[in-house]
Amino acid sequence: MQDIVASHKLAIKGFATKNPIFVCVISYSATCEIPGLTAAGANRDLMKYTSPADAEFLYYGRCKCIDAIPATPDGKPTPALITRAALQTGNIPLLVIDAGAKVKPSIPCMSFGLEPGRNIMNENAMDYSMVRRALEYGELIGKQLAALSDVVVIGESIPGGTTTALAVLSALGIDARFKVSSSMPENPHDLKNKVVATAINRAGSVSSPYEAVAAYGDPMMPSVAGIASGAVAAGSKVILAGGTQMSAVVAILKHNVKSIDKLCIGTTTYVTRDSSSDLAGLVSAVSKKVPVLSCDLHLGESIKPGLQAFAKGFVKEGVGAGGASIAAMIKSKGRITGKTLLKAIEKDYETLIEIAHC
Amino acid sequence: MQDIVASHKLAIKGFATKNPIFVCVISYSATCEIPGLTAAGANRDLMKYTSPADAEFLYYGRCKCIDAIPATPDGKPTPALITRAALQTGNIPLLVIDAGAKVKPSIPCMSFGLEPGRNIMNENAMDYSMVRRALEYGELIGKQLAALSDVVVIGESIPGGTTTALAVLSALGIDARFKVSSSMPENPHDLKNKVVATAINRAGSVSSPYEAVAAYGDPMMPSVAGIASGAVAAGSKVILAGGTQMSAVVAILKHNVKSIDKLCIGTTTYVTRDSSSDLAGLVSAVSKKVPVLSCDLHLGESIKPGLQAFAKGFVKEGVGAGGASIAAMIKSKGRITGKTLLKAIEKDYETLIEIAHC
Repeated sequence: MQDIVASHKLAIKGFATKNPIFVCVISYSATCEIPGLTAAGANRDLMKYTSPADAEFLYYGRCKCIDAIPATPDGKPTPALITRAALQTGNIPLLVIDAGAKVKPSIPCMSFGLEPGRNIMNENAMDYSMVRRALEYGELIGKQLAALSDVVVIGESIPGGTTTALAVLSALGIDARFKVSSSMPENPHDLKNKVVATAINRAGSVSSPYEAVAAYGDPMMPSVAGIASGAVAAGSKVILAGGTQMSAVVAILKHNVKSIDKLCIGTTTYVTRDSSSDLAGLVSAVSKKVPVLSCDLHLGESIKPGLQAFAKGFVKEGVGAGGASIAAMIKSKGRITGKTLLKAIEKDYETLIEIAHC
Repeated sequence: MQDIVASHKLAIKGFATKNPIFVCVISYSATCEIPGLTAAGANRDLMKYTSPADAEFLYYGRCKCIDAIPATPDGKPTPALITRAALQTGNIPLLVIDAGAKVKPSIPCMSFGLEPGRNIMNENAMDYSMVRRALEYGELIGKQLAALSDVVVIGESIPGGTTTALAVLSALGIDARFKVSSSMPENPHDLKNKVVATAINRAGSVSSPYEAVAAYGDPMMPSVAGIASGAVAAGSKVILAGGTQMSAVVAILKHNVKSIDKLCIGTTTYVTRDSSSDLAGLVSAVSKKVPVLSCDLHLGESIKPGLQAFAKGFVKEGVGAGGASIAAMIKSKGRITGKTLLKAIEKDYETLIEIAHC
């Protein structure tokens, strides 16, 4: 299919869908407060608003908890712009799940009753009981969704998520250093490696993926893993819509999901072609059975500098932008292409800028 | 179709469904604290647990927030027993929405961010802004559900809901006195009429259904109305799964929903054949276009006295029991009958009693 690249033969066919649903899991990890780690939020004080603002944007096309749309410090817009355009163009329904967001969004939102994740440099990310709850609630909801939908697309919005992903993968014996992605063109690998080394020095080795999540992860991971596990158990396929963070989710899942081949990672080519990270290498180190699908949204061809930036190493992915776009393309049997979406994204972006200038 | 009775010709056909979803809206009205008004809860202190316990029961087949299952003071079980059996037998997915429950359930639950309803004898039930929010959030969710499902079945669990229904209908000029149902065989009409008269004396006349809800209703009503309105607008049909309370929801909807004929009320014959109330009369006073479907669950033939009680005027309906059963029957094209469900209900009931005696 035009504009979708697959790592495995026949992978696109394997995720054929008539009625996908998009689930956006919003969360928080205080790890993001370490200076220099992430660009998800205009500044450190605003980072806690990023996820709820993303979720509000998905429903309303504007944010309620902040005046602007979530953006990087220099004004690159949130990838929720892409996600919303894909969901609207593809007529894909949306469910938002609050898995430990620090600020609650002003939308109808499902809650898993989790606390925000803690800074893994200083203390364990989550209590083990909260990891269990996230998995349990996720499975319950995943099963319900599978009764309604043949492909459940699960995206995430959590600031600092690639660092916790690196930590969980490291704790599980997978060398992910210099492979995780970044929302910035200058990927701060050294800082991330240092944070993770400090964390592992603090909490030591783990005997299971769940323990790894409790010590080094964030509340998004077991929530997404639970939903995916429940959906697959009940007969659906799952697109884990995200970049390198989702490889940590695969690491949690691979011991517990029988049909691991019902899962794929869906992202943008801005992640898969990023020379400062290695999603393909990371995923295949975790499981050779999980394909990576990536979509080309032609944002480099946009007349809008804010959107061009995505193709220049900024933002790249997030809020399930790539997976939602892939689902829209597959659902439409190729009628919706990267360029169709680009037009829709540009239109929404113009409206936003008009609103901002009012 | 066997075991379903319809008030309007062809109504069963009109609600044909391949992939229904069941939404349970849990809520609270402090009006229920008026002594003698309701049997939903073993005693006054326990009433706030009834709705969350019902919701937990739907997911787990047991309750978490209380030790037993919700029951009347003399031990008649919650109708959630019927709802769960219908959803399981019919493989119908479930979504729970917290619209102002006083105690929060220990399940993954969508929140509309509403406060519990206040006692209408003393003060307005809700702030007008909360009515607007319930409608807005409901519409958003209803639209998402319509993309997944051809029939959205909406049930409720709120103690004291027939009294607030009576109050809203009265405020809208519909004489509902002696017509609303009760969870007890001795319907306390005089008390309900007195409560409503006092409330209307307090807050006076209203100029719209939304104002009526704010003054005399409860948070369940605008939430259910919003979901129904969104679902119908996006092309689904809606079964309002409940007894006389749902006639108040129809009264809210009829001015705002273009395709009012896409709505029906789904309940049990224990409500429609109840001599102490008049659902048919009530609904037709509100709108002649909305059919009432009711199902016979043969509970009178049960060997279990706790279940027989439903056919003797106790409980009768609630937690969308009738509507969920109807959806299961229609989805299965009649393969699932009242007797099929009776067997499933009895089996679950036995398990419950075994657990209780452990």
